[in-house]
Amino acid sequence: MNYHFSRDSAHDMRYKRRMPDSLGTPCLIIDASIARRNIQRMAEYAAAHGLRLRPHTKTHKSIRLARMQLDAGAIGLTVAKAGEARIMAEAGDDILMAYPAVDRARCTILAELAKSKRIRVAIDSSVAAGALSAAASAAETTIGILVEIDVGLHRTGVQSAKAALELAQTINVLQGLRLDGLMFYPGHVSGPAPEQAVALTEIDALLNETLSLWKWHGLNATIVSGGSTPTAFQSHLIKSLTEIRPGTYIFNDMNCVLGGVAAVEDCAARITATVVSNAVPGQFVIDAGSKTLTSDRCGPAPNSGHGLILEYPGAKIVKLNEEHGQVDITACDRAPNIGERVTVIPNHICPCINLQDRVWCREEDGTLQPLNVDARGRLV
Amino acid sequence: MNYHFSRDSAHDMRYKRRMPDSLGTPCLIIDASIARRNIQRMAEYAAAHGLRLRPHTKTHKSIRLARMQLDAGAIGLTVAKAGEARIMAEAGDDILMAYPAVDRARCTILAELAKSKRIRVAIDSSVAAGALSAAASAAETTIGILVEIDVGLHRTGVQSAKAALELAQTINVLQGLRLDGLMFYPGHVSGPAPEQAVALTEIDALLNETLSLWKWHGLNATIVSGGSTPTAFQSHLIKSLTEIRPGTYIFNDMNCVLGGVAAVEDCAARITATVVSNAVPGQFVIDAGSKTLTSDRCGPAPNSGHGLILEYPGAKIVKLNEEHGQVDITACDRAPNIGERVTVIPNHICPCINLQDRVWCREEDGTLQPLNVDARGRLV
Repeated sequence: MNYHFSRDSAHDMRYKRRMPDSLGTPCLIIDASIARRNIQRMAEYAAAHGLRLRPHTKTHKSIRLARMQLDAGAIGLTVAKAGEARIMAEAGDDILMAYPAVDRARCTILAELAKSKRIRVAIDSSVAAGALSAAASAAETTIGILVEIDVGLHRTGVQSAKAALELAQTINVLQGLRLDGLMFYPGHVSGPAPEQAVALTEIDALLNETLSLWKWHGLNATIVSGGSTPTAFQSHLIKSLTEIRPGTYIFNDMNCVLGGVAAVEDCAARITATVVSNAVPGQFVIDAGSKTLTSDRCGPAPNSGHGLILEYPGAKIVKLNEEHGQVDITACDRAPNIGERVTVIPNHICPCINLQDRVWCREEDGTLQPLNVDARGRLV
Repeated sequence: MNYHFSRDSAHDMRYKRRMPDSLGTPCLIIDASIARRNIQRMAEYAAAHGLRLRPHTKTHKSIRLARMQLDAGAIGLTVAKAGEARIMAEAGDDILMAYPAVDRARCTILAELAKSKRIRVAIDSSVAAGALSAAASAAETTIGILVEIDVGLHRTGVQSAKAALELAQTINVLQGLRLDGLMFYPGHVSGPAPEQAVALTEIDALLNETLSLWKWHGLNATIVSGGSTPTAFQSHLIKSLTEIRPGTYIFNDMNCVLGGVAAVEDCAARITATVVSNAVPGQFVIDAGSKTLTSDRCGPAPNSGHGLILEYPGAKIVKLNEEHGQVDITACDRAPNIGERVTVIPNHICPCINLQDRVWCREEDGTLQPLNVDARGRLV
């Protein structure tokens, strides 16, 4: 199903007004030209610095978009869960699950996939190593393993170079596993470039310490995998890095905008919502609540509300219920009418996409095409 | 697909340990006996007080559970969106959309449904009245209308008895519409019973003022629809009420528990998660993050974390990323092993269900049966 729009509708406001009423709201529309530009920019950065790019597909969960990333030069894909790996195996042959697999269900899926695809998993425990070894052995296959090291986020990851060595040694002797290298996630690093540079240099020191220890003990790390969207364009400051795994960059969101790493014009995924009420003075209500925008706050600006309304930048989405977004307009010089459609850039696009079975892609010729969120809800 | 458990596994801990490894985590399991008890209790309360019960199906989004509610005596169903109405029309013939429909897509769906079902919509504007009238007229059918009045939540609803009268008069003369009564949502009323009683008595006064005005002007309200889970068992204090629309009561959640209207034992929907890391001292990480538990805080206790872990009640889910739940265990006297499964009662069950395509129902004979979340993601 395609909806055609005039070719001259360059400006969002104009194409939005021409969006057919039959397309109900709330709906999530991806601007294909912005997404392509974001994909291209990251690919060029990685190529310029000799870094391999392995985009995290948890942001879009779409086979078609994963293929676009691979076509632009990505060397493989990243996933968070085994169910996502199973879907993304339709797009690419080289998949890293940047998430510890310890339970039998998850390990079994990965081992089955490893029979025909190159599958790697990042882990931080000998329990995970044992579970993956058992699953890989039973499937008569090999799973590549990265040791995850905590570089400051304090979420997962072994706590020192020494602990990384011990886990690497365990992995190295287990049947069905192949020690491939190190992984880290610098999710705590954000803010201005000079501050990031200090943090990334410290991370590089820890990685080098770890890699030296491994080398001393005869262990090889062919992959050092890092990267997040906020730090992506500073990745070259980590000299030991071989690949990066940014995810959000394909769309960007208010986390990126208010975090200073993207402009509003770089935000490719936007939610069109309808004003359904203005009964309460000083506010209007849109038909996008937490079941559309999620309750995720904006990391760099937790009090900024629940997303940016492009047509009313002075408005603030102050409260979400499941299907209601309450918008404070006391700082606006005008108010929308009931029935008017508005465009919202969400705080955090990744969980928003995961609420939709299908989104819409506005192609450069002005048509709207459906795009399945293939890996939506794949939690295992 | 059924998983059989021993009939003597009365205690959750025991059945959980017997949950097959092949059922991956995170997964959402509904205890059928608790859900039935919750359904029965609400049905008995409504019957005892001469109130009609119209459960809000946004909580479970399941045709099967909606039928259970109807079989227990509910007189109809409530939905939030037209897409949900279309699904729930498979379960029942009498549906209220407690949400303003103003855009063509939503109105058209409702008008089509109204040809074969009794469809009502609650609205707060003449724009919505006009849009629904046009859709109903085009479909040569009639849609019943409730006027929504704001009783203190300040989200939607006309702002006074006089405004309710004006909208009712508009509706009353529009083709394709039938004025059926009043609707309100007491979402701001919570806390101890005596405090609730004061608030509900004030609401009753506003409703009576409105109904008197209508009567004086020759307008009839056959329905006065109210109710929320926190206030449900106090609904009889609003004398003018004819029906209640609680939703969460079928499952309950930490909002209900910490709000004082349910016990942990009344929580029917629980998420089983696996401990995937304990690398960082003082914490463990479960494979349920914001894509499973949502980022919704607990309303009555916003600093209580992201849900209750039954096996580690002293633990606190302090932070969620998309697929990681970080659990602080510094106040616990023991810690789980990696690979151990734990049971989480979420803060707010409604958006959690909406993340799952399928959940599991533990029947009273110990079997686990799949249950489709039929109306998941129906946002229009």
